[in-house]
Amino acid sequence: MSHTSTQIQLAQRPHGWPTHDDFRTVTVEYGDLDAGQVRVVNEFVSVDPYMRGRMIDTRSYIPPFGLDETMTGGAVGRVVESTVEHLPVGTLVSHQFGWRDVVQEDASGFRALPEPPGGASSSVFLGVLGMTGLTAYVGLLDIARMQPGDTVFVSGAAGAVGTAVGQIARLKGAGRVIGSAGSAEKVTVLTERYGYDAAFDYKNAPVRKQLREAAPDGIDVYFDNVGGDHLEAALDSFNDGGRAALCGAIAQYNATSRTPGPSNIANIITRGLTLTGFTIGNHLDRAEAFNADMGTWFANGEVVYDETVVDGIENAVDAFLGLMRGENTGKMVVRIG
Amino acid sequence: MSHTSTQIQLAQRPHGWPTHDDFRTVTVEYGDLDAGQVRVVNEFVSVDPYMRGRMIDTRSYIPPFGLDETMTGGAVGRVVESTVEHLPVGTLVSHQFGWRDVVQEDASGFRALPEPPGGASSSVFLGVLGMTGLTAYVGLLDIARMQPGDTVFVSGAAGAVGTAVGQIARLKGAGRVIGSAGSAEKVTVLTERYGYDAAFDYKNAPVRKQLREAAPDGIDVYFDNVGGDHLEAALDSFNDGGRAALCGAIAQYNATSRTPGPSNIANIITRGLTLTGFTIGNHLDRAEAFNADMGTWFANGEVVYDETVVDGIENAVDAFLGLMRGENTGKMVVRIG
Repeated sequence: MSHTSTQIQLAQRPHGWPTHDDFRTVTVEYGDLDAGQVRVVNEFVSVDPYMRGRMIDTRSYIPPFGLDETMTGGAVGRVVESTVEHLPVGTLVSHQFGWRDVVQEDASGFRALPEPPGGASSSVFLGVLGMTGLTAYVGLLDIARMQPGDTVFVSGAAGAVGTAVGQIARLKGAGRVIGSAGSAEKVTVLTERYGYDAAFDYKNAPVRKQLREAAPDGIDVYFDNVGGDHLEAALDSFNDGGRAALCGAIAQYNATSRTPGPSNIANIITRGLTLTGFTIGNHLDRAEAFNADMGTWFANGEVVYDETVVDGIENAVDAFLGLMRGENTGKMVVRIG
Repeated sequence: MSHTSTQIQLAQRPHGWPTHDDFRTVTVEYGDLDAGQVRVVNEFVSVDPYMRGRMIDTRSYIPPFGLDETMTGGAVGRVVESTVEHLPVGTLVSHQFGWRDVVQEDASGFRALPEPPGGASSSVFLGVLGMTGLTAYVGLLDIARMQPGDTVFVSGAAGAVGTAVGQIARLKGAGRVIGSAGSAEKVTVLTERYGYDAAFDYKNAPVRKQLREAAPDGIDVYFDNVGGDHLEAALDSFNDGGRAALCGAIAQYNATSRTPGPSNIANIITRGLTLTGFTIGNHLDRAEAFNADMGTWFANGEVVYDETVVDGIENAVDAFLGLMRGENTGKMVVRIG
């Protein structure tokens, strides 16, 4: 008996903004399981900003997506057929097989998950309890070494990572947390729902000016999801000894030529600043500390989260393009079936 | 009895390249010593790249030089009259009273020095055994966290700090040390005298190209004395996890407008790089470790150094301008009397 899987492949490498032409949908027929394999029906597939970087063929921390191969990435699903004892039918699992509705692979590619706490959807393991939350945690606490009392600035603050960063900062004793986002609605959500002390719409006025007004005494930590003028503004607002965690540079993802960097690099010297880039794959050893902290906060209702849900694997490309345009609040996921 | 002191003051803040018009020479008459004071006749006065930054009135780690005040900075001299027991006449001292031939101040502003080892001139306490050497040591080992086996790139390598960095790197087990400088003569000195494994003249071809050829397997550490295209080239040559210590940005010191930063900031993220700026004043706690290491190396003849000596306090401005133009090899000092 065969099993049909709908999968999204990368058909060509995007130049500038990705379009539907850069992807294709294929149907794969799986046969019976081989020994050691499991079959998983996905519940949620993740689309993430870092994926834009992997669509081009450039030296990076992880190899680019393969052409004519199914897009890989985080997903959660449930085992529907199994040849291994430790992943029986019904087990909720996470994996990196990406943009497809059904996956059939060796059991070593899957990690068993508990049922989601508090009646949450399993998508939470792609977001605040998953890589997204871990990225926020590691970037803020390990990379930018936030200390209690610090003034923290987060760009792209209404995104999945940014909403987590603001809350972790508050829970870890930040003195003041400031966020930027790209619409009035998002700005309201930041202060009213996510506990940001101040927020501004970066489209309203120069970031430098708005950041200075929001942080008249300067910032100590900058969590950068954006790059570009946000990074330059942060360099101008940093107090001595300030630390930046560079997580994403979404402003540059779709640029077709090199864009000039910040014009105030000299501040790094005169103020003794540290800028550190990171990608979460190199910091998975922090998952245990993260799970302990975030698990407690989540169980106590001390963190909130949002998801923007797009239905159907056939709409995964639309979900990704919407993410690139900033149409999400919180984690963008594709719901399957 | 009065004592005449010739001093150089900052008369106006330079715009772009400094000129003689930005300074004036004054004669100060000192009277008898007050209780607690000493009078010191300088032997050497230091001119340093960081001084350009202090000539403008901008927020920085230390306040700008005062207008119509004598230029401060490192100097070594000898006590010629004293009211305090711990600094008797004849004591060699270092101080920060700067561009003058004679200084008369409270004893608390002076630190006693040993006689220079091995028959060296006392100027060595402004260079390889002083702040210059400490800057190299801290930047390489603490800020850039060089590890044995690392490939190290140093810009402005023929300068006072750069010549020390290359040697400390070698003595601490660097795998390969590469330097850039601004003339064929300096490049030769780097490899033949200072133990650099490779060096290039940045005026000959794009830095990015020459660095890639000199370090085909990439670099792990970058000690930045220059900024500009050197920093951009380093970002392109970094291996994953690379660390940059940003010490000076001499390329930008005399710019009259903001200059764009490196166009490859995104590499900081994808390669997990760390850029840290520093100024030595925040790291004086490392002087003890530095003195122990460098004292041993110096006594064993394991480090060499050069000085470019300009005679006469009245030529201090020329010495500083020559430093800005890169006319020095090794430490630039002004010899008094």
